[in-house]
Amino acid sequence: MIEIRKATEADQGAIWEIIHRVLQGGDTYSFAPESTREQMMAYWFAPGKHTYVALYDCKIAGTFAICDNQPGLGSHVANGAFMVSALFAGKGIGKAMGGFSLTEARRLGYKAMQFNFVVKSNERAVKLWQSLGFNIVGEVPDAFNHRQLGLTNTYVMYQKL
Amino acid sequence: MIEIRKATEADQGAIWEIIHRVLQGGDTYSFAPESTREQMMAYWFAPGKHTYVALYDCKIAGTFAICDNQPGLGSHVANGAFMVSALFAGKGIGKAMGGFSLTEARRLGYKAMQFNFVVKSNERAVKLWQSLGFNIVGEVPDAFNHRQLGLTNTYVMYQKL
Repeated sequence: MIEIRKATEADQGAIWEIIHRVLQGGDTYSFAPESTREQMMAYWFAPGKHTYVALYDCKIAGTFAICDNQPGLGSHVANGAFMVSALFAGKGIGKAMGGFSLTEARRLGYKAMQFNFVVKSNERAVKLWQSLGFNIVGEVPDAFNHRQLGLTNTYVMYQKL
Repeated sequence: MIEIRKATEADQGAIWEIIHRVLQGGDTYSFAPESTREQMMAYWFAPGKHTYVALYDCKIAGTFAICDNQPGLGSHVANGAFMVSALFAGKGIGKAMGGFSLTEARRLGYKAMQFNFVVKSNERAVKLWQSLGFNIVGEVPDAFNHRQLGLTNTYVMYQKL
């Protein structure tokens, strides 16, 4: 069973395990693989961020954070960042977190959700976001230095809420 | 005559005058019009930022800042932000700063420059960037809450260096 709730400080160890593993891959996020726990916790729990964990059978299987995509006159658009533990791949954690985040962003008053940096070669993520209603509204050439592929494109993805 | 040099702490008063006036317009930047000097100086002179001023006949007429557009695996792409004093409009300050910034970004080792949030209705800026070689690679619906126009689109603009 999947449960989603706000993250607490007590979750930081499990969250860091997930983030650290994802960044080690060097294939989905721009944060350097050598990013430290302190750096990433400061980012993931930054002021103004709404941070959550997804539990699968009571174990932390994924985490995501919602925040303003821009300050002030752009703050009606949410940004989201999502990571799933490789140990829980294929169990629908990403889809559950994505769906939850859209409802939650609407509840928080956001009018849209935007991702600025979806790595094009991360086809599973692109398809997941499309299945949840996101459209590709931009493509930036060579924006991501993929560990295996070298410089690869990224998408800007978006949907109204 | 236009001169461009690195900004120093002594320039902050003049830089704030420019930024404050631009933000008051509520028509080009996402920072709230009520942003404070402290907030904006922290942003404009943030660690890792390369900050410059343009002088017209020895008076500070514009300012811009270059930084990594993303951390780590996206840090080969520069981001830039540019503001010109209304007192010096139409004198080619924006074009001079834009051209300088491309040369400077190349010198700093960046492989491309990207703007994430060019307000579509700011036609002068869009045309300027196009004239300097930028392409529109994305368009986000209703991303900017324009003071006069309400919700308006923004462009993602990009060029290789």
